[in-house]
Amino acid sequence: MHSVGICGSDVHYWQHGRIGDFVLKKPMVLGHEAAGRVVKVGSAVTHLKPGNRVAIEPGVPRDMDEFFKRGQYNLSPTIFFCATPPDDGNLCRYYTHNANFCYKLPDNVTFEEGALIEPLSVGIHACRRAGVTLGSTVLICGAGPIGLVSLIVAKAMGASKVIITDLFAERLAMAKELGADFQLTVKKEDGAQVLAKKVKEILGTQPQITIECTGVESCIQTALYATCSGGVVLLVGLGAEMTTVPLVNAAVREVDIRGVFRYCNTYPMAIAMLSSGKVNVKPLVTHRFPLEQAGQAFETTRQGLGIKVMLKCDKNDQNP
Amino acid sequence: MHSVGICGSDVHYWQHGRIGDFVLKKPMVLGHEAAGRVVKVGSAVTHLKPGNRVAIEPGVPRDMDEFFKRGQYNLSPTIFFCATPPDDGNLCRYYTHNANFCYKLPDNVTFEEGALIEPLSVGIHACRRAGVTLGSTVLICGAGPIGLVSLIVAKAMGASKVIITDLFAERLAMAKELGADFQLTVKKEDGAQVLAKKVKEILGTQPQITIECTGVESCIQTALYATCSGGVVLLVGLGAEMTTVPLVNAAVREVDIRGVFRYCNTYPMAIAMLSSGKVNVKPLVTHRFPLEQAGQAFETTRQGLGIKVMLKCDKNDQNP
Amino acid sequence: MHSVGICGSDVHYWQHGRIGDFVLKKPMVLGHEAAGRVVKVGSAVTHLKPGNRVAIEPGVPRDMDEFFKRGQYNLSPTIFFCATPPDDGNLCRYYTHNANFCYKLPDNVTFEEGALIEPLSVGIHACRRAGVTLGSTVLICGAGPIGLVSLIVAKAMGASKVIITDLFAERLAMAKELGADFQLTVKKEDGAQVLAKKVKEILGTQPQITIECTGVESCIQTALYATCSGGVVLLVGLGAEMTTVPLVNAAVREVDIRGVFRYCNTYPMAIAMLSSGKVNVKPLVTHRFPLEQAGQAFETTRQGLGIKVMLKCDKNDQNP
Amino acid sequence: MHSVGICGSDVHYWQHGRIGDFVLKKPMVLGHEAAGRVVKVGSAVTHLKPGNRVAIEPGVPRDMDEFFKRGQYNLSPTIFFCATPPDDGNLCRYYTHNANFCYKLPDNVTFEEGALIEPLSVGIHACRRAGVTLGSTVLICGAGPIGLVSLIVAKAMGASKVIITDLFAERLAMAKELGADFQLTVKKEDGAQVLAKKVKEILGTQPQITIECTGVESCIQTALYATCSGGVVLLVGLGAEMTTVPLVNAAVREVDIRGVFRYCNTYPMAIAMLSSGKVNVKPLVTHRFPLEQAGQAFETTRQGLGIKVMLKCDKNDQNP
Repeated sequence: MHSVGICGSDVHYWQHGRIGDFVLKKPMVLGHEAAGRVVKVGSAVTHLKPGNRVAIEPGVPRDMDEFFKRGQYNLSPTIFFCATPPDDGNLCRYYTHNANFCYKLPDNVTFEEGALIEPLSVGIHACRRAGVTLGSTVLICGAGPIGLVSLIVAKAMGASKVIITDLFAERLAMAKELGADFQLTVKKEDGAQVLAKKVKEILGTQPQITIECTGVESCIQTALYATCSGGVVLLVGLGAEMTTVPLVNAAVREVDIRGVFRYCNTYPMAIAMLSSGKVNVKPLVTHRFPLEQAGQAFETTRQGLGIKVMLKCDKNDQNP
Repeated sequence: MHSVGICGSDVHYWQHGRIGDFVLKKPMVLGHEAAGRVVKVGSAVTHLKPGNRVAIEPGVPRDMDEFFKRGQYNLSPTIFFCATPPDDGNLCRYYTHNANFCYKLPDNVTFEEGALIEPLSVGIHACRRAGVTLGSTVLICGAGPIGLVSLIVAKAMGASKVIITDLFAERLAMAKELGADFQLTVKKEDGAQVLAKKVKEILGTQPQITIECTGVESCIQTALYATCSGGVVLLVGLGAEMTTVPLVNAAVREVDIRGVFRYCNTYPMAIAMLSSGKVNVKPLVTHRFPLEQAGQAFETTRQGLGIKVMLKCDKNDQNP
Repeated sequence: MHSVGICGSDVHYWQHGRIGDFVLKKPMVLGHEAAGRVVKVGSAVTHLKPGNRVAIEPGVPRDMDEFFKRGQYNLSPTIFFCATPPDDGNLCRYYTHNANFCYKLPDNVTFEEGALIEPLSVGIHACRRAGVTLGSTVLICGAGPIGLVSLIVAKAMGASKVIITDLFAERLAMAKELGADFQLTVKKEDGAQVLAKKVKEILGTQPQITIECTGVESCIQTALYATCSGGVVLLVGLGAEMTTVPLVNAAVREVDIRGVFRYCNTYPMAIAMLSSGKVNVKPLVTHRFPLEQAGQAFETTRQGLGIKVMLKCDKNDQNP
Repeated sequence: MHSVGICGSDVHYWQHGRIGDFVLKKPMVLGHEAAGRVVKVGSAVTHLKPGNRVAIEPGVPRDMDEFFKRGQYNLSPTIFFCATPPDDGNLCRYYTHNANFCYKLPDNVTFEEGALIEPLSVGIHACRRAGVTLGSTVLICGAGPIGLVSLIVAKAMGASKVIITDLFAERLAMAKELGADFQLTVKKEDGAQVLAKKVKEILGTQPQITIECTGVESCIQTALYATCSGGVVLLVGLGAEMTTVPLVNAAVREVDIRGVFRYCNTYPMAIAMLSSGKVNVKPLVTHRFPLEQAGQAFETTRQGLGIKVMLKCDKNDQNP
């Protein structure tokens, strides 16, 4: 392994030992945003050989079930997924993975970019399911890592205007750097309908698509009120089990509500984007630590410092 | 005008003078499920002539706006719609309508079938937006008129198994007659997750599509829990403004939530279905009254007797 | 194995030893339309057990390549396919197949119906890719086995009017029995544009969808001329390598031309249809022979007698 | 009127008096790539007022037929279209047009950009119907104006690698400037399969999408051979009525063949793109003439000099 990013879920397992129904019952290796170099391949593998640099897609379907056959393998209930209990992750020196889910990196794509394909994939899957296309107007709620990758992908797919919201001005500043056309600083006490109206004023029109990355009830409400008739609200952020939302308002305006569970079929597309320079994810990496300082690295993420923390697993090569 | 069906919304305007934001400020002619015979046409009309029997699509876009240009004219905010204030409906003897939204009925389609295209259109739009196709498994919540037309359309589109729920056994009996494969009598106090489990047991699998026709919060919850991963919940029934739902459960299983607002582009398709005998809506008409007895007719619908009440506007022809 | 249907391709390999680039280099077991009873399962198999009656999907992807991951495993270049050289088919007494591509038959679906899922799948894939839906008007060129299954599926998907053409009146008679609304006997010398006009006259409108099952150049031309603007021509029949067609006529009317290669994700849907009685394929079986009389069975198919010839492989059970 | 671009079809009508079935029977004003300033509006118009700068969509449906209702108004057989006989175009000083098809230009979009929305729309419609999306690999045959706008749009929609072909190196040089990743100079005598192979070698993979802008038979053949299984060939260029193509090769690899007829629903999207700076069409204008020198301007286009020639209709403002 060469570079492994730390995800919020890694920190959550570390701190709480569980996320929802996924409960740790024994020690588990963390890490699922990863890239490394091939050391050995099985005899049936033809597309990779030792020395190849690869990005690792952490989810590998175990069963050839109806989901997999239909191209939605992310929904397969028995899928293997790095660092989701009881499956071990790949934050380590050496790791074995299904070769079909290891993707060769072109020379002009770094290991860290390869590791970032994982969070980028969430943005791709979200924008794809939301139907972002040429000239789309988009509202993104939340300027954390997922909001930012959604922003990057939305712009790369042709979105003409993206407005992004957050509680913190410094996160919005980063969003601006990454291409957001408008930023809106919100406060916890802001009403959903008031915010929806503000979004419309700033954008000059209601957004066709809203990508909700916070999971906060009032933000989901804002998303539904803000989106134009015939539009889509895409739920990426996850909050409380039960949510109170203006469902009638959305339904009678044919505003579709769609969720995402991880992603599928994103790695080849992401590599094509990175290699062609269509997207630039490098600014997302704000901290780097050698694997030996993993504790400090996790602490950095836990405190919400920076955007993405990278752990460098190869003693001989700590480059990006 | 020949035959005009009474819709729940007609009764609601009659009793309450409003539905949501649509408020009556002056007397309004009711009626929007209608068929009649052409008496006169404008000079530019070429597809119709006096004597033609026609079904009347009640919604006519006033503006060539983006919604109309994209083929979603039902979402156009300035659309004319029969019997939605302030627009008069067509429950009367003579009525003028945009000829482009009058559709000639083949000889083997009756006036009443023509009038029933309106509620049938809701079922078509719902099933189409839900993506019902060959072999689909479908749950329909509510066996009122809209639940029943959704059932008819779902079967015509190739659904293999449809389960339908209702509080009343007699409505489920009608559903069985119209093609429902399974019926489930529910009680108000039934828990959403328990019902979702029952649906799965009866159907032998989770439904891919749920068409929610009640608008009741607990039913929407049932719909979300019951539908299989990657499936669709289609909201037709409208209830309270704010609804508390298990949004995370739906989102992480990529169960899409979609609403419908009336319909568009359904009349030619509906006429094709009726004429070819693919669907049979005749059993839906349970009561008929001459226009002179409109009061009694509305009272019948208000009391929830039967399924569809028809008003016969042509003194010389009270046939179906 | 219990019942195995004979396909035109089986006869072709028998007579010519090749189909296009697929050339026989050593003896090959024929047969790919098959159903049987499970005798033994591997230790990892949980959805099947000995005694289960199953339909066998003949194509099994060997590689987890991009096509498979995207749900189009039929396009995977390294796929295993029964009775396509060098892969052996299943016209024999005992046969081993990937359990994930063996589908349990409900009690009310016979072995022969299970075997017929294979040709039915071609019809499903064709109609699905053609976008047949409620109220579709469809032209089917050719009333051979594939034309007939396409007809059955189109009607089950909600097509309102289907017109079918063939050189032979007796094949059209069968089509009529299976639900075709109109039949048109054609002659080899008929001009494409003349036929297209006839189709429009009979149907009362241009078909939205044409399913071309002959592969004959003049029929493909007819298909393109006949289909209405914005429609789809689906090519199932395969003819000469190069074809001369009115491509500009189709292009400027946005008539899409789509092909099919076998099928994918059809078995569960087909079983649902058969079990629910939505489609009836039983009349397609016109001849039955015990496996011992395979020569005579192949000769029957070679001579074009009847529609589908079934070989009965189980000595103790020669029932449908 | 302010700026009107000259299209190849304008020159063709000038020289030959007809294009296919469209025959000039009386003098006709040319021009359909146009932008101007509003002088007067009808009393029902609310979205425009005198002084507004607008782009003019030249096609205006006359009938509210099924095509228009479904959002495909470009396919409406009775559509008005500037400079298609017998409809006059807008290459003049003053011109009256349906206000619903006049789109207000933002301050940062010039008149010439507004006029270029017309050819850009062909590129948008082509790329949209071809399904260009994030990471798409695209082959464009022909580097004329339509090939170039397709290139610009494909990149804006997220295409990762675009290879473009032409007979002339100088046209490919322009394509490179506009963002083409690879250029391939072809010769008339090159074989289709050889070229398809070259494309694969240069691109490192078969393109998922090919946009054919030449209409030449051998190029269409190349397009079909070159495109990967499951891909799309989009026909924009129009050639001879009958074309000989490897239809079987495309069909069995499920390579779809789609045409375009003009476009619909592109103007708002195009304006959004131009205003946000997502695309830059300014380099396409290589020549400008005042309206008085129209003859010379047409001669320039006829000789194939430069890319786009603009006629400046406003004596007081000859700026871009």
